[in-house]
Amino acid sequence: MEPKTPSDSRTIMTDLVLPSETNPLNNLFGGELLARMDRAASIAARRHSRRIVVTASVNHVAFNRSVPLGSVVTVEAAISRNFRTSMEVFIDVWIEDRFSGQRTKANEAIYTFVAVDDTGKPTEVPPLIPETKQEKERYAAALRRKQLSLVLAGKMKPEEATELKALFVSS
Amino acid sequence: MEPKTPSDSRTIMTDLVLPSETNPLNNLFGGELLARMDRAASIAARRHSRRIVVTASVNHVAFNRSVPLGSVVTVEAAISRNFRTSMEVFIDVWIEDRFSGQRTKANEAIYTFVAVDDTGKPTEVPPLIPETKQEKERYAAALRRKQLSLVLAGKMKPEEATELKALFVSS
Amino acid sequence: MEPKTPSDSRTIMTDLVLPSETNPLNNLFGGELLARMDRAASIAARRHSRRIVVTASVNHVAFNRSVPLGSVVTVEAAISRNFRTSMEVFIDVWIEDRFSGQRTKANEAIYTFVAVDDTGKPTEVPPLIPETKQEKERYAAALRRKQLSLVLAGKMKPEEATELKALFVSS
Amino acid sequence: MEPKTPSDSRTIMTDLVLPSETNPLNNLFGGELLARMDRAASIAARRHSRRIVVTASVNHVAFNRSVPLGSVVTVEAAISRNFRTSMEVFIDVWIEDRFSGQRTKANEAIYTFVAVDDTGKPTEVPPLIPETKQEKERYAAALRRKQLSLVLAGKMKPEEATELKALFVSS
Amino acid sequence: MEPKTPSDSRTIMTDLVLPSETNPLNNLFGGELLARMDRAASIAARRHSRRIVVTASVNHVAFNRSVPLGSVVTVEAAISRNFRTSMEVFIDVWIEDRFSGQRTKANEAIYTFVAVDDTGKPTEVPPLIPETKQEKERYAAALRRKQLSLVLAGKMKPEEATELKALFVSS
Amino acid sequence: MEPKTPSDSRTIMTDLVLPSETNPLNNLFGGELLARMDRAASIAARRHSRRIVVTASVNHVAFNRSVPLGSVVTVEAAISRNFRTSMEVFIDVWIEDRFSGQRTKANEAIYTFVAVDDTGKPTEVPPLIPETKQEKERYAAALRRKQLSLVLAGKMKPEEATELKALFVSS
Repeated sequence: MEPKTPSDSRTIMTDLVLPSETNPLNNLFGGELLARMDRAASIAARRHSRRIVVTASVNHVAFNRSVPLGSVVTVEAAISRNFRTSMEVFIDVWIEDRFSGQRTKANEAIYTFVAVDDTGKPTEVPPLIPETKQEKERYAAALRRKQLSLVLAGKMKPEEATELKALFVSS
Repeated sequence: MEPKTPSDSRTIMTDLVLPSETNPLNNLFGGELLARMDRAASIAARRHSRRIVVTASVNHVAFNRSVPLGSVVTVEAAISRNFRTSMEVFIDVWIEDRFSGQRTKANEAIYTFVAVDDTGKPTEVPPLIPETKQEKERYAAALRRKQLSLVLAGKMKPEEATELKALFVSS
Repeated sequence: MEPKTPSDSRTIMTDLVLPSETNPLNNLFGGELLARMDRAASIAARRHSRRIVVTASVNHVAFNRSVPLGSVVTVEAAISRNFRTSMEVFIDVWIEDRFSGQRTKANEAIYTFVAVDDTGKPTEVPPLIPETKQEKERYAAALRRKQLSLVLAGKMKPEEATELKALFVSS
Repeated sequence: MEPKTPSDSRTIMTDLVLPSETNPLNNLFGGELLARMDRAASIAARRHSRRIVVTASVNHVAFNRSVPLGSVVTVEAAISRNFRTSMEVFIDVWIEDRFSGQRTKANEAIYTFVAVDDTGKPTEVPPLIPETKQEKERYAAALRRKQLSLVLAGKMKPEEATELKALFVSS
Repeated sequence: MEPKTPSDSRTIMTDLVLPSETNPLNNLFGGELLARMDRAASIAARRHSRRIVVTASVNHVAFNRSVPLGSVVTVEAAISRNFRTSMEVFIDVWIEDRFSGQRTKANEAIYTFVAVDDTGKPTEVPPLIPETKQEKERYAAALRRKQLSLVLAGKMKPEEATELKALFVSS
Repeated sequence: MEPKTPSDSRTIMTDLVLPSETNPLNNLFGGELLARMDRAASIAARRHSRRIVVTASVNHVAFNRSVPLGSVVTVEAAISRNFRTSMEVFIDVWIEDRFSGQRTKANEAIYTFVAVDDTGKPTEVPPLIPETKQEKERYAAALRRKQLSLVLAGKMKPEEATELKALFVSS
């Protein structure tokens, strides 16, 4: 399969925060943002793989900044690393100040999708060639995240997670 | 503040999977499940704190099992540990076979909520007293997860995360 | 078919009242509550029958208590009596005070569902064995309601509705 | 207050049955139809009273005919009788055959609404003058239904419900 | 095919403006009104043709009057002219003052639909016989609009659009 | 006010076509596309003006290509010309083939928005400086469209619409 770049899958979903999506403080529900990010990320995974894709996992997501009713929210998703049949998708969320127009980073999230055929069986995906500095960093970090995920799921022994172990053990 | 038990906050949300929530394979979108879990978990956090609560973070979530259109899905959420102004909520998701009625575990997830006052300022929450064996295990594990979260956010040095470090370093 | 108890079908649907479901006084629309109760009751009927179920009728429902925006609403449904191919489902609706956490009864409703096969043809359902005092009372009253329903639909003569007639005629 | 006729409040809501409103047999959920009827009936009650209105009760509703996905459904609502601060609304539901265009009666329902002021306090409504034969019959029957409702709610003794008693006791 | 009148297809869709459909000024989004008009107009086109219909175009629509949250909105649609396989639908939108009950014209719009068979192929529609003065005017004007539409789409030369040309050129 | 370019307001809204938005042929309802375009265009108008914006009109829209369930749809909106208090927004809609990934133009539309202050009063917007060839063409054509709109609304005499008249009258 022909390699692709993160730009090939980059997906931009700009939309308003509507009243039906807000909590009693008039801020976007965390769960609604998770659902939007899932939709944007699934489009990115589909653009990379040209396959049906299903959400396999969501990495730890921190909600550091509330998103008020009426905000313009931009969700940007792009593949950060391919594995054999799965893809890590990195998602950046921005909100805009209504008056100054200044964009502020509101969230980051990392979802993993599996490409499947029409029967739901996992199927191979093209390799990813990161281009920019940030894309290369995210590509490298994806391996550590994969190991952490396997350790947490009990599918890899902590001592085999060499990338990850380095974080906790001084040489 | 008077301590509470996980039972005091246990929240059960049983509902159908509707056509508007499914992907091209006719399974529930991962993002929709994340949104439902957020609603159930926020109710549990509110029952524990009797405050407005906002989603602070979502731990790693794996989607191991697809949830078909028309399924009955039960989302059960209960506080697993309190911190000063935040609460970890543990969520179990079950689906039922339409014919045999057998319940199968479909997912687990862990969300963290912060209790806030009407101005959005964090405010203290009551202590939690775990009762059953499972509740005590989840209570203990919550501290490790908190440390991992702080390490990943760069707010704690890996070597200070004593609970976590033990996983990677044989004594 | 093996008998079941009301507990076997008991369905709990706890959820928030969202802005898109409220009227100009910021209270839940009666119609939205009817729709939620229908979903919960249909799950209970399906749990009892393990069949596709369709709403056959809704008994008189009184809305005595308004349900404000942001409330936590718990809808509890369980089979109260089986007939040959139909099931009466009794539904209790509770709301919680946000600060004290006290639960208040907001509504009661009674829906009837018919179990059908894949072609839509009515099909037998298992017998119900009521256990608690309340379950036994609801089981007994279901027969009176069935007679009233038949009389109102012109399918039973008032003088044959022996259970019902007793209400209006002193012996 | 100036009297009004049923025509003054007649409300017609024609709409499609959408995929998100259907059950596994691809028919409209009973609960969704109840919600649509509530919206149409509340508009009729508002047209009669020119006040905010809230659903007070729903009479027994039978679902005799399924409403398939893609159907055109017409909900017609009009005031059938006024009481001091409340209004009975009679609702007729029609579906159209896609090819012949023939309209079939699918349902009838009767909702009661209370008119309230901005603080939620019940407030008087104008008298209703029925005009057609059907309007006059529905107006007369509304009194019997009111008595039945009071008896069922334990607010009227069965022997006082003179209109209703006549149904069960031959003179 | 037997001719029909505009009354045969007249479709009335009365509904409330709900919170999830409003902008930051608490008025109905223009786009939501366009979607409602499309649904009502498609029902009118289906009533005229007894076929599946698809939106072919929307004429210029001006939003002269805002529609506040909680308004009762009535969308009335009827066929204004048939062409071989397409139909022009004229839509009038009314809002009602909550207190006086006075109806005000809020919008007009003109949509064109094509009738198709189950494979999506265009298929003939019955002729339309306008009856009232307004229906006859709209029928006549539809031809001018058709020509303008063809000119704007580059499918008719301006000098052939005799009806339209007359507007700009004094004889 | 400082001039802006079309790039400053360019808004990209990529999303899936969901089952609740499709007609009996499983294609996106025309009305839903109009609603999405309205949301994207309103964000573009807000980015240009940094004001609350309300839809003033929609130009003729032709739906030449159906958009099937499950498609990825990209709506791109940017200001094409400013007037004193209003802005014309040009919208391009693309769909992607699921397998080849090829993007196809599905629709074009032109909406006009008015910028208003918090009381709903129209307020001035910054000038637009078109940059690319396409932006310059759209900027020029906007004046003709404005004249046509004024003529159709009866606010300009056809003979004064010099830009437009040229289309129909050979010199």
